[in-house]
Amino acid sequence: MDTTRINASIITIGDELLIGQTIDTNSAWMAQELNAIGIWVKRRVAVGDVRDEIWNALTEESKHSQIVLITGGLGPTADDITKPLLCEYFSGRLVVDEGALQNVKNIFERIIKRPMLESNLKQAEVPDVCRVIQNKRGTAPGMWFDKNDVVFISMPGVPHEMKGMMTDYVLPAFQEKYSLPAVVHRTLLTAGVGESYLAERIKEFEQALPPNIKLAYLPNYGLVKLRLTGTGSDVDAITDETESLFWQLQDLLADVMVINEDKPLEEAIGRMLTDRGKTLATAESCTGGFISSLITAIPGSSNYFMGGVVSYDNNIKQNVLGVPKKILEEKGAVSEETVIEMVKGIKRLMLTDYAIAVSGIMGPGGGTDEKPVGTVWIAVSGKGETVCQKFNLRFDRKRNIELTATNALNALRLLIINEENSNSK
Amino acid sequence: MDTTRINASIITIGDELLIGQTIDTNSAWMAQELNAIGIWVKRRVAVGDVRDEIWNALTEESKHSQIVLITGGLGPTADDITKPLLCEYFSGRLVVDEGALQNVKNIFERIIKRPMLESNLKQAEVPDVCRVIQNKRGTAPGMWFDKNDVVFISMPGVPHEMKGMMTDYVLPAFQEKYSLPAVVHRTLLTAGVGESYLAERIKEFEQALPPNIKLAYLPNYGLVKLRLTGTGSDVDAITDETESLFWQLQDLLADVMVINEDKPLEEAIGRMLTDRGKTLATAESCTGGFISSLITAIPGSSNYFMGGVVSYDNNIKQNVLGVPKKILEEKGAVSEETVIEMVKGIKRLMLTDYAIAVSGIMGPGGGTDEKPVGTVWIAVSGKGETVCQKFNLRFDRKRNIELTATNALNALRLLIINEENSNSK
Repeated sequence: MDTTRINASIITIGDELLIGQTIDTNSAWMAQELNAIGIWVKRRVAVGDVRDEIWNALTEESKHSQIVLITGGLGPTADDITKPLLCEYFSGRLVVDEGALQNVKNIFERIIKRPMLESNLKQAEVPDVCRVIQNKRGTAPGMWFDKNDVVFISMPGVPHEMKGMMTDYVLPAFQEKYSLPAVVHRTLLTAGVGESYLAERIKEFEQALPPNIKLAYLPNYGLVKLRLTGTGSDVDAITDETESLFWQLQDLLADVMVINEDKPLEEAIGRMLTDRGKTLATAESCTGGFISSLITAIPGSSNYFMGGVVSYDNNIKQNVLGVPKKILEEKGAVSEETVIEMVKGIKRLMLTDYAIAVSGIMGPGGGTDEKPVGTVWIAVSGKGETVCQKFNLRFDRKRNIELTATNALNALRLLIINEENSNSK
Repeated sequence: MDTTRINASIITIGDELLIGQTIDTNSAWMAQELNAIGIWVKRRVAVGDVRDEIWNALTEESKHSQIVLITGGLGPTADDITKPLLCEYFSGRLVVDEGALQNVKNIFERIIKRPMLESNLKQAEVPDVCRVIQNKRGTAPGMWFDKNDVVFISMPGVPHEMKGMMTDYVLPAFQEKYSLPAVVHRTLLTAGVGESYLAERIKEFEQALPPNIKLAYLPNYGLVKLRLTGTGSDVDAITDETESLFWQLQDLLADVMVINEDKPLEEAIGRMLTDRGKTLATAESCTGGFISSLITAIPGSSNYFMGGVVSYDNNIKQNVLGVPKKILEEKGAVSEETVIEMVKGIKRLMLTDYAIAVSGIMGPGGGTDEKPVGTVWIAVSGKGETVCQKFNLRFDRKRNIELTATNALNALRLLIINEENSNSK
């Protein structure tokens, strides 16, 4: 390769990250975007709102990487540590940037519609040694500094503001400035098989991979993603090489593959339904609407998702979904009989081709000896057949809900495939 | 204070963090737990599965902190970099740990019910210079190393496995080993006022805070959390001091405070309903079940939440919720008239005291000139009154859904309070 590898470090500033009150989603997004244009994120560091910590992090990371991206520490109520520090670190002085000032004024006049405060005006001040990156989505401008062949970029920590600056300005500027290698990712999603069994199945494939193509296992809620990453100087050559290996991998895992893209299960199901012109509805008890919220998080889901009923209370199961009172009394809400009636009831109510129903005990309370916390019944129903399964989950409430959703969506996927296979016989 | 401050660094190992395929939720949890027992997380660092990077991080972080916590790099398909590296770094050799081996065998016999693979057996190997931390929730054991007065602990990256080890072993061991200061947090949640206006309102309070008590602003989906953190050597004294200031803060913000604990809005509403013995139902269009999934994420929500209808398709609005066809045709699904009919319909169907209904255009598609993406109507209804509001959101689909949910839940909260106030007049 005739390109030097460009490394980036991401520094996140803020006490809230160090006391755990905020989960850092910015770094993951930044890493994805940088990676896609051939920049390798070497280190991610989070430090508190402490002068010396920030100063040290700038110095240390500039030894590791040619690019140092800094987020956070620029809000109107921040202790004003970061901007004066950057000013001193890069030997500048604070001046008002006219573009940034106009932006702050505009936002207050047009969107917030309240008088500006002194603290808002101060956001338009920047060190005179930086290139200003205008913020189209908020009041704090971004700042680009060059020092000893290292680029330092400071951006606000508000996710959509940072994302806007990266997309509109920073990433294109990097592509122009550096001669970057081509990086190609191909991802597939599998269901029903654990990480170590997958590894055993594709052992020979993995051992035969060339050094410029890597395989990664990414387990996620009972599913495992597999990602091939190819790196090279020629974009066409590396795309072809990765693509050809990806076809081999798909062949090896055809029976457990859900989708051959980096997409979630609910999107794979959305495509199956769209392709077939079919509709779906959900009847949820223990997941409380989580399954339908996953389905409807996909743009365009209104084409196949008619709706759902969250039948949390037994009266709703009975009166809205038509589960017979006798079944609820004799078998209980968490039973095979109840989910079968729920899935039939929702299909009848919403007149759909397919339906999902779940009922279970997610914890921490509500368990009994006979039906402990984690007991879940799932039913899926299509043209004729209704398939029912019991699960015994053993995690906390949140994870039990997530796993129930994954299992229910996967059960629907398998039902659709099985219907097709038996039709074509 | 007669206690030395104990600093911790968290090192997360794994390429998946550096290419952004995984969001790091472990570090936030660890930071919270460490903070609660008086250990300050000074730095969080993420590095890839690269020998030199991990080695450097261990050395660098041991200069910053007395405790270095390491997660990740221990899975059965990991490239086996981390464990041999730890072995070399701490001058040990790999031996089979009998407890860990028994644990792996048990998990395969009792839970996985498949034969073990070579890679699973290798998980029972540990460097002979560490204390083994048994993993009750998975196959990879934890390891505790002491070197030059710094404690290094390596744990698997699977969240519930790491959490189990921290709770059962690591945190109690730290409390025994170190003389830790008392740290007290008091948090309140506000709604309806931005960060800079809150700061302006409590400026004098903030400036008068003693140096051992800090105030933090934590904005989150249109709400702002305020957190007071007191640090001291005497737990009773610092609790009293923080508590007394927290009362002052609550007084200053009484009109915008949602709850005086570190709890989400949906939990505050759950308490209001429980205290009053009232019930709730939801009718969701654009949020697709997200509001009901938030409500039901709270344990015990079955006491007040009866259920909901996700009326994604107009037929469902009409046939299940009883929105007149004429209104849907003349005013459209995203209109004041429709959400009012939806909220009335769900109350009628589920026989509840309160109800929430939302309908909007979340994007990216579906917008028109008259009703652009981000147009949302929210209705909440109680004993008699029904309150309706229009919002114009301007974010992406995910954030628009989240903000709609927050606004809808807050509208319900205000309705309950207003009902009470007008009753007591």
